[in-house]
Amino acid sequence: MKKISGGVTAAKGFKAASTEANIKYKNRKDMMLIYSESACTAAGVFTSNVVKAAPVMWDKEICSSIHPVHAIVANSGIANACTGEEGKRLCAETAGEVESLLSLPKNSVLVASTGVIGMQMNMEAVKRGIAQMVPELSDSEEAATGAAEAIMTTDTHSKQMAMEFEISGTTCKMGALAKGSGMIHPNMCTMLSFVTTDVSISHDLLQKALKTVVVDTFNMISVDGDMSTNDSLMVLANGEAGNKEITEEGDDYNTFVEALNSICKEMARMLAGDGEGATALFTAHVINADTKENARTLAKSVICSSLTKAMIYGHDANFGRVLCALGYSGVLFDPEKVTLSIESEAGSVLMFKEGEPQTFDEEYATKVLSAEEVIAVIDMHIGTEEATAWGCDLTYDYVKINADYRS
Amino acid sequence: MKKISGGVTAAKGFKAASTEANIKYKNRKDMMLIYSESACTAAGVFTSNVVKAAPVMWDKEICSSIHPVHAIVANSGIANACTGEEGKRLCAETAGEVESLLSLPKNSVLVASTGVIGMQMNMEAVKRGIAQMVPELSDSEEAATGAAEAIMTTDTHSKQMAMEFEISGTTCKMGALAKGSGMIHPNMCTMLSFVTTDVSISHDLLQKALKTVVVDTFNMISVDGDMSTNDSLMVLANGEAGNKEITEEGDDYNTFVEALNSICKEMARMLAGDGEGATALFTAHVINADTKENARTLAKSVICSSLTKAMIYGHDANFGRVLCALGYSGVLFDPEKVTLSIESEAGSVLMFKEGEPQTFDEEYATKVLSAEEVIAVIDMHIGTEEATAWGCDLTYDYVKINADYRS
Repeated sequence: MKKISGGVTAAKGFKAASTEANIKYKNRKDMMLIYSESACTAAGVFTSNVVKAAPVMWDKEICSSIHPVHAIVANSGIANACTGEEGKRLCAETAGEVESLLSLPKNSVLVASTGVIGMQMNMEAVKRGIAQMVPELSDSEEAATGAAEAIMTTDTHSKQMAMEFEISGTTCKMGALAKGSGMIHPNMCTMLSFVTTDVSISHDLLQKALKTVVVDTFNMISVDGDMSTNDSLMVLANGEAGNKEITEEGDDYNTFVEALNSICKEMARMLAGDGEGATALFTAHVINADTKENARTLAKSVICSSLTKAMIYGHDANFGRVLCALGYSGVLFDPEKVTLSIESEAGSVLMFKEGEPQTFDEEYATKVLSAEEVIAVIDMHIGTEEATAWGCDLTYDYVKINADYRS
Repeated sequence: MKKISGGVTAAKGFKAASTEANIKYKNRKDMMLIYSESACTAAGVFTSNVVKAAPVMWDKEICSSIHPVHAIVANSGIANACTGEEGKRLCAETAGEVESLLSLPKNSVLVASTGVIGMQMNMEAVKRGIAQMVPELSDSEEAATGAAEAIMTTDTHSKQMAMEFEISGTTCKMGALAKGSGMIHPNMCTMLSFVTTDVSISHDLLQKALKTVVVDTFNMISVDGDMSTNDSLMVLANGEAGNKEITEEGDDYNTFVEALNSICKEMARMLAGDGEGATALFTAHVINADTKENARTLAKSVICSSLTKAMIYGHDANFGRVLCALGYSGVLFDPEKVTLSIESEAGSVLMFKEGEPQTFDEEYATKVLSAEEVIAVIDMHIGTEEATAWGCDLTYDYVKINADYRS
């Protein structure tokens, strides 16, 4: 299993395109299209927010059955959420337009939107965008990068990656793109992330693999505790690698899960590190917890706290905030057994050991806390389970970005 | 029932004092003492954080039995949380010092601390502070104000109030003080708030009244979603008003609950409005929900969202964020029945009606959103229950205050 360059066009048979459709943003790309001539098996996990955007409802329906899927069309600027009946109609019309121009069967196009909630899409702009993209579809790396860029909102850089691996002797590839960077607190997945692969795998196992992988990757990140109405993680598998179709669990399935996990974990870390206004990736690593679920809850509670996040921004060794966040997580534990260190590439500082505060050099601690990734290592001393969660610091810029996001 | 001037010294027999003990802060008051010569019945509700500060453990023990209580001693600057065995010893020593100087029985003094977690108290400073305060105890309004000021941390102003009411023809009084203003997300109560009353009431009923009242007052506010290790709300009732002791539920008990509720609601609103860095009080009023508990959860979810809070700071009518926060609250509902208005003293704007976004005048909406209190009125259209939650906006100053709180 090795990392290769590229993104969603790395796997055989996948093309991408992007364009300036002027849906809301001006002078930048705001639409993207991913396409496979071969029909794909598709799986998805979506926001568990009760208020779901129109495209989420559309995609859930398609991904839950074994519809052959050929494309994903996505826009940034407007989320098509809280848009009532009109929003649903516009979503279906968007898919229909792609199907028509690419001569695809009905219900073979997934749709995704990200941006402001409560505004209606401009359908003329959407149609113009689709018409511009279809003739530009390409399997080049640039096309993949363009697609990743087109769905950025407040992201400071685009996110994509690709992997190569073998399944029973056949070389397979997998690529992905994702966008953040606010309203991210995935209870299932995050904002928008699309994965393409040329592996041949059954619909049931593709969905199972995705559900397995999401728990310790996208579900373990948070930027601001706000779970979006639009979160969608979708995988398209077109089978062009030529491996024997994976139809049962075993070595091939495990290899596929490993590849999917690597990609999802890396994309999740990238999203957390590029959270709105963030200057650092903030990782909580809980070890020796009693259960896996408790380890996850504890790690997540630490990276979700406004006060731990502000502490990372201030490079301030105010370690009591980490203990406080563990304490209100809902998990029962004995505070007198807990040990806490803060670590980074600059070193490691033991701050709290089995219930007692430790003395440490403040200057050194500030240095450790000033790295690009700061890790809180929390030893619960009551079991053997561990979990990792990724977040970011809370900065002036987060407030700035969100106080005037619509304007 | 009427509001009167003053705070914790308003009720008969209560005295207060405050002083500069230099525990951590310099050139400001950082200790306070509340005292009643007559023994008080005491009740308390405390943080449900698993990591509890030493004074919380001390007070819980005392309030859970019918110990006669005479005083509360509190400091700001250091929280005495995550301080291990040494912290517990210092807490007991603090109470013992007050008992000794005031010739009080053992275990008759409650202790409270607020400030930085993980640092040990300077016991010499604490003892000096107590020695300075004891001779200064006074029932003046100034003494009450001084006590309210002494426990402020990042609060911008002190909070106190007092009420007068009749219980079966006897005039009674009740006063309170409270401090915020960060790490406030009370799952039971909030930071520090002390209530004094001259009503005569049994220990069981005092505790019951407090537990009843806290649910829709202190438990419905949030500044930053972080539940402190030190949250303590304590009531002392010394019986000096001379009413017949309240020993069962009935008219007298109901009058007492009403008074306690008025005081707690007002104090809770003050705390929310003076949240760290806040420029506005942000109120969510959920009506016509299916259950009371769901109404509370929905209202709380709206005021806890970083994105709705940033929207209030930006005076931006980005109403989709309110719907998004309702959607991830954990409560099931039909988004197509929901209606949302934003209201303030400047007017009212209907933004979302039964699942459909509404057109409204942006300029007018900005005016409505620029008031000192902004209220989101959310009609769920599925029942008759309602609840109100209070929060504040998220500002640059919140980040600033918390990025360098220790320094």
